[in-house]
Amino acid sequence: MEKILASIITIGDELLIGQVVDTNSAWIAQELNKAGIWLKRRISVGDVKEEIVHALDEESKSSHIIIITGGLGPTNDDITKQVLNEYFGGRLVVNEEVLKHIKYLFEQVFRRPIIERNLQQAEVPDICTVLHNKRGTAPGMWIEKNGKVYVSLPGVPHEMKGLMTDEVIPRLQQVFTMPFIDHRTLLTAGIGESYLAEVIKDWEAQLPAHVKLAYLPNYGMVRLRITGMGSDRNALNATLNSEFAKLQELVREWLVSSRDISLPMALLELLGSKNRSLSTAESCTGGYIAHLITSIPGASNHYKGSVVAYDNEVKKQLLRVAPETLQKVGAVSEEVVREMVQGAIAQLHTNYAVAVSGIMGPDGGTPEKPVGTVWVAAGNEEKQVTRRFHFRYDRQRNIEMTAIQALNLLRKFILENS
Amino acid sequence: MEKILASIITIGDELLIGQVVDTNSAWIAQELNKAGIWLKRRISVGDVKEEIVHALDEESKSSHIIIITGGLGPTNDDITKQVLNEYFGGRLVVNEEVLKHIKYLFEQVFRRPIIERNLQQAEVPDICTVLHNKRGTAPGMWIEKNGKVYVSLPGVPHEMKGLMTDEVIPRLQQVFTMPFIDHRTLLTAGIGESYLAEVIKDWEAQLPAHVKLAYLPNYGMVRLRITGMGSDRNALNATLNSEFAKLQELVREWLVSSRDISLPMALLELLGSKNRSLSTAESCTGGYIAHLITSIPGASNHYKGSVVAYDNEVKKQLLRVAPETLQKVGAVSEEVVREMVQGAIAQLHTNYAVAVSGIMGPDGGTPEKPVGTVWVAAGNEEKQVTRRFHFRYDRQRNIEMTAIQALNLLRKFILENS
Repeated sequence: MEKILASIITIGDELLIGQVVDTNSAWIAQELNKAGIWLKRRISVGDVKEEIVHALDEESKSSHIIIITGGLGPTNDDITKQVLNEYFGGRLVVNEEVLKHIKYLFEQVFRRPIIERNLQQAEVPDICTVLHNKRGTAPGMWIEKNGKVYVSLPGVPHEMKGLMTDEVIPRLQQVFTMPFIDHRTLLTAGIGESYLAEVIKDWEAQLPAHVKLAYLPNYGMVRLRITGMGSDRNALNATLNSEFAKLQELVREWLVSSRDISLPMALLELLGSKNRSLSTAESCTGGYIAHLITSIPGASNHYKGSVVAYDNEVKKQLLRVAPETLQKVGAVSEEVVREMVQGAIAQLHTNYAVAVSGIMGPDGGTPEKPVGTVWVAAGNEEKQVTRRFHFRYDRQRNIEMTAIQALNLLRKFILENS
Repeated sequence: MEKILASIITIGDELLIGQVVDTNSAWIAQELNKAGIWLKRRISVGDVKEEIVHALDEESKSSHIIIITGGLGPTNDDITKQVLNEYFGGRLVVNEEVLKHIKYLFEQVFRRPIIERNLQQAEVPDICTVLHNKRGTAPGMWIEKNGKVYVSLPGVPHEMKGLMTDEVIPRLQQVFTMPFIDHRTLLTAGIGESYLAEVIKDWEAQLPAHVKLAYLPNYGMVRLRITGMGSDRNALNATLNSEFAKLQELVREWLVSSRDISLPMALLELLGSKNRSLSTAESCTGGYIAHLITSIPGASNHYKGSVVAYDNEVKKQLLRVAPETLQKVGAVSEEVVREMVQGAIAQLHTNYAVAVSGIMGPDGGTPEKPVGTVWVAAGNEEKQVTRRFHFRYDRQRNIEMTAIQALNLLRKFILENS
């Protein structure tokens, strides 16, 4: 079976001067992948006609499907629609359905007067199929030419996502016969990428040719993903299941989850399986641990809340940390994080708590406690474990590393004490 | 003066199946831009020799500088070094400096035994200049050929960043004579992109040809950026300053900041200028508002902390929300967010507080309070303002929108009540 190949072209000067991070491409890549479409390349170009045309020419050579995002806004720097219209030899015509929808959005949802440049968004090339954009004013556009499919979508992430899910993927599944692509992913913590490679090298060497392994290291954790492609769904499934079982066995010591889930989700599932509750007490991470946990739908079933005690007064007032402890050993200390765990459990009435205190930088370090020094504690009412870290990254990454290490320390504590 | 053009090639299968978001490209783009280098295209390809070679061929045609990231790890799926070595006709040789550094990292920093595949990272093509990677084992590589510069960097963000700052940018400035590129950016809130375009259209029409305007909408805010390019630094500066002054005047009503800073940073600066303190009380945003604030270095000067009251018991216990209020009108209500502000101010002893309570989805909605319903309050001890929102996005974006709207409500309150 022929491999169906796709390219993504993201359009916008803002991508080339780095004022926005392109999160759309990763999301689109995932969706294509799930549908059995192989993403070959991703290109970002500016709002420049020649660049867009060159990218279209180039990607048409090798891909069956070209997904284009961005440059469909109402302002003058948005030229994607005009360029596509010209490229495919169309004529811009007002689409009455789109016009009605734009008017509805302005009158009923945005409740703002409508202006000429908004109405112009209802003009579409007459050679395209309009894809209805429920969530915004810029319609999606579907163009077929020489057996290739070109799809133009707005760059606003939630509008793009709605269109991909509701319109693009179902239509692609009608046009193309897809091979079957599948993945198995697991998450490890506490082992480096190169060690992991040593542990699994014999297994890796014997993998069949249509199964590929990838290492995805991130923040002190490594995800391992095996990907298979084939035309026989059952045979592929069986191969992947068998190889994945062997892999899980090999990495058992460091295994956080055998599914492609995040550490906070693994932690919430663990709490769920034991029907226990959790609170957090954060100093240096400033709410980031709470945010990671509450990003998961349903977190409220097991997570009660956090005291973000950025100021020492808050540590005393709301977490009952003893003023003498703070005075004697300072906020970044084993004693204080231990008292923070005890305080969170007592004040928020939970079974478990985790606490962190440290210096994230760039300022605030001392010779004894340089930037990157972090104390973490996790425990229940009776017992707490603590660990000291010394990170050497920038502020943002220090915060992220601290949060991940704290969640993992807690996860291990729960596994060993429940 | 010739425009110096660059391309970024990011390498890794993980980018094509969407398991990681490429944040490196945006960061590199910013750094190149600041140095007066114009990023022309960004390409992402898999760990596939033919794809890497094709991208190198293609980008060499139009760009002077090709920055390559990723695929330098110790595992079998990392092939960038081998491909570059072959592409440029080199021979892999052990670099003694790199070898020493790898041994140092394993012995002194990681404190793990070193294995063969780590040592292999000291092998580099003999046709490259090695760029010392202080923060990791994979060295950067600098190759010049036919007047073009090729730079290969590890994909680990903090390693890549260190190499770009310490090695790549200074060397590029020696090799090329750059034109002068400069930007002015301002941040607006409370006005849509198309309205803004109407407000400033006459000004936009009269901009000189070497000055470009871009709209950067994000989460209910729009940044406006003007970019100029020229060989005379002083003349360009004068033009940009004059145009930027006119722009600021036109958008004054919605202006959050005349610098390229975030809303949390603008808020902290406002608090700083008035020497006032802030706390937060978060239900549905689960710590995200605290995280946005504490991501800014020096936040602790004005920000004391947050009570993340995910559970209603925590609202009562730590924020003194009256049980009767919760019972009568429910947690997602004007009364409760008002009491949360009062509670945060009283419990955390701050001048101002902001509070949010809502339903972020995907579950938890009711006919009266559907998913996306949010109440926000901001105020001081004497007075609070409240606002109800109804967002229609996914959980993550609902959280982000709520946080931004809460910070902006607070910012406006402080401006009007201080």
